[in-house]
Amino acid sequence: MNTHLSASGATPDTLSVGIIGGTGYTGAELLGILLRHPVFDVVAVTARQQAGTPVAAHWPHLAGEIDLDFVTPDAVSPGDLDLVFCATPHAAAMAIVPSLIEAGVRVVDLSADFRLKDPAAFEAWYGVPHTAPHLMTEAVYGLPEFHREAIASARLVANPGCYPTATLLALAPLAVAGLAPDARIVVDAKSGVSGAGRKASEALLYGQIAENFTPYGLGGHRHHPEIVQGLATIGLTAASLTFVPHLLPMFRGMEVTAYVELDAPIAEVRAAAVEAYLDEPFVHVAAVDGTSPVPSTQTVRASNQCRLAYYEGAPPTIVAVSVIDNLVKGAAGQAVQNANLMYGLPETAGLERLPAAP
Amino acid sequence: MNTHLSASGATPDTLSVGIIGGTGYTGAELLGILLRHPVFDVVAVTARQQAGTPVAAHWPHLAGEIDLDFVTPDAVSPGDLDLVFCATPHAAAMAIVPSLIEAGVRVVDLSADFRLKDPAAFEAWYGVPHTAPHLMTEAVYGLPEFHREAIASARLVANPGCYPTATLLALAPLAVAGLAPDARIVVDAKSGVSGAGRKASEALLYGQIAENFTPYGLGGHRHHPEIVQGLATIGLTAASLTFVPHLLPMFRGMEVTAYVELDAPIAEVRAAAVEAYLDEPFVHVAAVDGTSPVPSTQTVRASNQCRLAYYEGAPPTIVAVSVIDNLVKGAAGQAVQNANLMYGLPETAGLERLPAAP
Amino acid sequence: MNTHLSASGATPDTLSVGIIGGTGYTGAELLGILLRHPVFDVVAVTARQQAGTPVAAHWPHLAGEIDLDFVTPDAVSPGDLDLVFCATPHAAAMAIVPSLIEAGVRVVDLSADFRLKDPAAFEAWYGVPHTAPHLMTEAVYGLPEFHREAIASARLVANPGCYPTATLLALAPLAVAGLAPDARIVVDAKSGVSGAGRKASEALLYGQIAENFTPYGLGGHRHHPEIVQGLATIGLTAASLTFVPHLLPMFRGMEVTAYVELDAPIAEVRAAAVEAYLDEPFVHVAAVDGTSPVPSTQTVRASNQCRLAYYEGAPPTIVAVSVIDNLVKGAAGQAVQNANLMYGLPETAGLERLPAAP
Amino acid sequence: MNTHLSASGATPDTLSVGIIGGTGYTGAELLGILLRHPVFDVVAVTARQQAGTPVAAHWPHLAGEIDLDFVTPDAVSPGDLDLVFCATPHAAAMAIVPSLIEAGVRVVDLSADFRLKDPAAFEAWYGVPHTAPHLMTEAVYGLPEFHREAIASARLVANPGCYPTATLLALAPLAVAGLAPDARIVVDAKSGVSGAGRKASEALLYGQIAENFTPYGLGGHRHHPEIVQGLATIGLTAASLTFVPHLLPMFRGMEVTAYVELDAPIAEVRAAAVEAYLDEPFVHVAAVDGTSPVPSTQTVRASNQCRLAYYEGAPPTIVAVSVIDNLVKGAAGQAVQNANLMYGLPETAGLERLPAAP
Repeated sequence: MNTHLSASGATPDTLSVGIIGGTGYTGAELLGILLRHPVFDVVAVTARQQAGTPVAAHWPHLAGEIDLDFVTPDAVSPGDLDLVFCATPHAAAMAIVPSLIEAGVRVVDLSADFRLKDPAAFEAWYGVPHTAPHLMTEAVYGLPEFHREAIASARLVANPGCYPTATLLALAPLAVAGLAPDARIVVDAKSGVSGAGRKASEALLYGQIAENFTPYGLGGHRHHPEIVQGLATIGLTAASLTFVPHLLPMFRGMEVTAYVELDAPIAEVRAAAVEAYLDEPFVHVAAVDGTSPVPSTQTVRASNQCRLAYYEGAPPTIVAVSVIDNLVKGAAGQAVQNANLMYGLPETAGLERLPAAP
Repeated sequence: MNTHLSASGATPDTLSVGIIGGTGYTGAELLGILLRHPVFDVVAVTARQQAGTPVAAHWPHLAGEIDLDFVTPDAVSPGDLDLVFCATPHAAAMAIVPSLIEAGVRVVDLSADFRLKDPAAFEAWYGVPHTAPHLMTEAVYGLPEFHREAIASARLVANPGCYPTATLLALAPLAVAGLAPDARIVVDAKSGVSGAGRKASEALLYGQIAENFTPYGLGGHRHHPEIVQGLATIGLTAASLTFVPHLLPMFRGMEVTAYVELDAPIAEVRAAAVEAYLDEPFVHVAAVDGTSPVPSTQTVRASNQCRLAYYEGAPPTIVAVSVIDNLVKGAAGQAVQNANLMYGLPETAGLERLPAAP
Repeated sequence: MNTHLSASGATPDTLSVGIIGGTGYTGAELLGILLRHPVFDVVAVTARQQAGTPVAAHWPHLAGEIDLDFVTPDAVSPGDLDLVFCATPHAAAMAIVPSLIEAGVRVVDLSADFRLKDPAAFEAWYGVPHTAPHLMTEAVYGLPEFHREAIASARLVANPGCYPTATLLALAPLAVAGLAPDARIVVDAKSGVSGAGRKASEALLYGQIAENFTPYGLGGHRHHPEIVQGLATIGLTAASLTFVPHLLPMFRGMEVTAYVELDAPIAEVRAAAVEAYLDEPFVHVAAVDGTSPVPSTQTVRASNQCRLAYYEGAPPTIVAVSVIDNLVKGAAGQAVQNANLMYGLPETAGLERLPAAP
Repeated sequence: MNTHLSASGATPDTLSVGIIGGTGYTGAELLGILLRHPVFDVVAVTARQQAGTPVAAHWPHLAGEIDLDFVTPDAVSPGDLDLVFCATPHAAAMAIVPSLIEAGVRVVDLSADFRLKDPAAFEAWYGVPHTAPHLMTEAVYGLPEFHREAIASARLVANPGCYPTATLLALAPLAVAGLAPDARIVVDAKSGVSGAGRKASEALLYGQIAENFTPYGLGGHRHHPEIVQGLATIGLTAASLTFVPHLLPMFRGMEVTAYVELDAPIAEVRAAAVEAYLDEPFVHVAAVDGTSPVPSTQTVRASNQCRLAYYEGAPPTIVAVSVIDNLVKGAAGQAVQNANLMYGLPETAGLERLPAAP
């Protein structure tokens, strides 16, 4: 009934939350965070095919922790919800989100449907025309480190993709450090297989992934335009970007090695990055003197952390390294971080988990 | 200065905690739990060789989370500590624990040094005479589900081994279900490699563990006498026990498949187990009707949960299945559970983490 | 045209071979062996859905090695073939094999369709009536170490299942060592995920298999009656058998730990096993003095080897350990071993590969 | 006694081979190939610490396949050997190789000791002065695809490093396609952990490698000067090279994604590569029309194959992808390929193994 919002603007005690799309890895990660969140209370989880069956039957690690059955999206009554996390496949969210927004429900959309600003670009990359272009304009790109204020007041937050999150956090400080707007940028990115979702596909079987490594998306990846758009918002409008993702033989974790033409002393670059993220709870920059261990995905596993470091390549190349957990800072964790901002909660609420490493 | 204990017996606000042995996997897991614990405050972490270096240099996933340097065990002043978790190798704890106890520090010892009651058995299995046999007698075996009261008032808790924890939780309900005291028991157990610790050993390299599976301990494993002793405390004094552990190509997780001669209907066995653990926060028994998914290690990963299920073998064989995370319920988590009991805290304090699955 | 068989019975130079079912892991393993076999020449590979597409498009590791396109089973002309390896799913082979046999093609069937001798048992375990029961009787159970002569002259060989292969090779010597016919046997078996085949199933995704371990088949596994039947052929007619398989977080490899009531000195048991397999090219028994390393699946990876060892449990329990590669000695390798026998070729032809370890 | 070399230059029937350094992964891979090689006969395997113990005790997967004991390097009599594969750590080979060469033994050195031509560069990167600089000059860089003739007559072949092999095979055709000599090249390379060898090191434990991914060598990697030198030999003398290796959570396999400034149509680039390797038995280039699957490490696993493909990046960037098995084409397999050339054997002798995939 949307009644949990205090008129005074004070932090609410409890907020009713729905998850649209609860059978994928992102849905599970949202559940894992929200079932321990101090304010958000999961009251509905949707799944078309599994409607009527217990959530805990699909996710046996939650047996004893959640009593809800899956419901169909149609069975969700917007009036019962304050906030919805939309974890549907791409092109499904745009059919669901508009009516939620109209009904006064705030939405964090984890799909790609509201990330791009240009409907033509959306259609080009996702193969279908966008059916809610007005919300593309309104949606706030949910990278808290750069858009905190807009997120706080947004009705609809477009949660960034995993590759863009890792890449933009790494490159943003370089703008400060003097990166030319037309510098050539190469982003060589590697992701754990959870990024491909929980699809019954031969390509994602253990036998295809374990002890194997392969580049993909060499004809163009959907996160390319999102990275380009994101770079523009931080003042790097004309960069040439080559982006090649690779699939790692592991479940969670993402690493980006970015090669950037930038003629500045490495100490200056590092100092700019340290300065940029000094007060950020979820971004950790390696020491300016270069003595920190090189970031590895293990050091952020199952946490909302991003770890960054910068090195010298062949001049004038700077090498930026960024690691996140693609399911957390790259998806569900960042979504909750955004939701915390939307309700004036501590940004770290529910996200205190230390990395599960080693 | 041991001053944090309230004279009234009320729950203290903060307690000063030391970790003896902070460079192994168990030490890391303790840190991961305790750095988020509402009451226990880690004030000292020891490591002989790394003394003087930052804890976060050894554990880069904790960079930004802990400011302590490792200290030598000698540098720890008992007067500054209320509680110590001892995570040293076997045979090292017995040299350190007595002086702590005498100084009024309470101890949860995660090594094997105080688990067995018989000094001769200790010497036979660990190869050295025990130097503190009086504390072997005093120490309380820290399996909370069976020894809750004794733990609450203990000065010294011997935290159970991982195999004994998984096995005893599985077999205990069978005593109720009519297991004969001399029944033949076969325990076929499998453990993730973290159980072997963080030793620079060729046998533990990625190349020896990944895509490999091997039994070990076939000449006798140190957890055998601990299981036999533990069975005795639940009324199974003369059981014939064959125990074969195996090394899994994974990091954390432990599964026990136990084969027990027991002539009782499976529904009765299941009902006895459900009944036995009805109020336990960390033990979950599969449904009596057999419809639950078979327990897998993934469903307890990085959590303090134990999941149990029972099946029919060739009559009169009952098959008991038990899964835990060997580093949590099988080590650090159970240690904190014990410490919570020792100080009248909620037993689940600091252990609320849901399984990190899938 | 079946013309390659020399009238004189001399070893033929080349034999035309077909693979029915070439898209699964067993099909790939057959191709990997047969494309380097000195006599067998693969001339047809079937796949209903992929008919018309290159085999190398489905198996990119064979690009440059095979020029065939997949064909439908109907497109295979028996007159062009001497020998067929049937690697179809269970219950499909019995529809295809009879006509091949009638046309004079010899068949090694890797499915379960002709392993059991009792049509009622087949129907009970596989859920459909058997449509070629006369061939169930005729088919020779293809465990070369025990049925070499019958295999040599067989028209149809039923290639054993992976669990039965590993189990029967381990238990057979115990009959000699004095195993009572009604002894209780517990077989705790573990298999790499390739044993479950290449099905687009959520249960087989990397995210469900990696860093996970789970028992399965606890309501009864189809290899149970095959093991019982196999035990009977080696004189163990009334054994009580409890068989629990488990799924390992790895691709290839299988381990069996068998617990057997047997009141004999371990040295005697070991000596019986060494003696039993002295001349076998593919079965290696650990040293009688117990100094050999415990068998691990890595030591047989990608080879046709089986490694066995025997240990003492709680008296009178003997622990037998057996490892094979489930895709090789447990499937494709044993199939080629059988085919070699059928044509008087050296039993090791095409199977000389050393284990790919570490 | 070096007597196996036929005076006539005809292919010898058997040649006596020694392996210096048989306890590492490269040594095991050499054994796995040579024990099945038609001509090379392993008569000595050295290991200082394990001298006197059976090779099969160290490598249990070879139990039953090799009867030799390890010997010390000093115990090897050059007169008994025709050929030596030197698989020692870097800086050890230069102490051993000169006397072998003087004694008339031909050598394939798998270490880095004779790869660089400039003694100063060696000292700068390996930290010790070179003790046999004359052999640095004489040694032939053993990349058969480019130096076949020189290898055939060499006394000493320096087997290339794994990263240089994968990189040079990928980049060489670009010289033909018009790559400018001063083009900026970024090589983002990823290797399975076997490339780090079999050292008892905490950094190589399963717990540090599995489900983890990390860049390394960011202060400079020893293969950098080797790649630069190798590029020079194919006419790319002044290229700016940024080279960043990464450690993969898998055992064997290496992938290179190279980003090259090259203003040419992609079809032209692909055609140049296809043309360049048309007759090569171990290099496979993806189809000119771009329809081939993207190369993955699995498709070359445990084989001597290299697979290459080329794609468009942001103009004028060309993306080259190269995969090899670092232990085979990147080490032991290429060493045997070189040795085959040295003795006029078929280049593929002993290297016929198909990839062990999936």
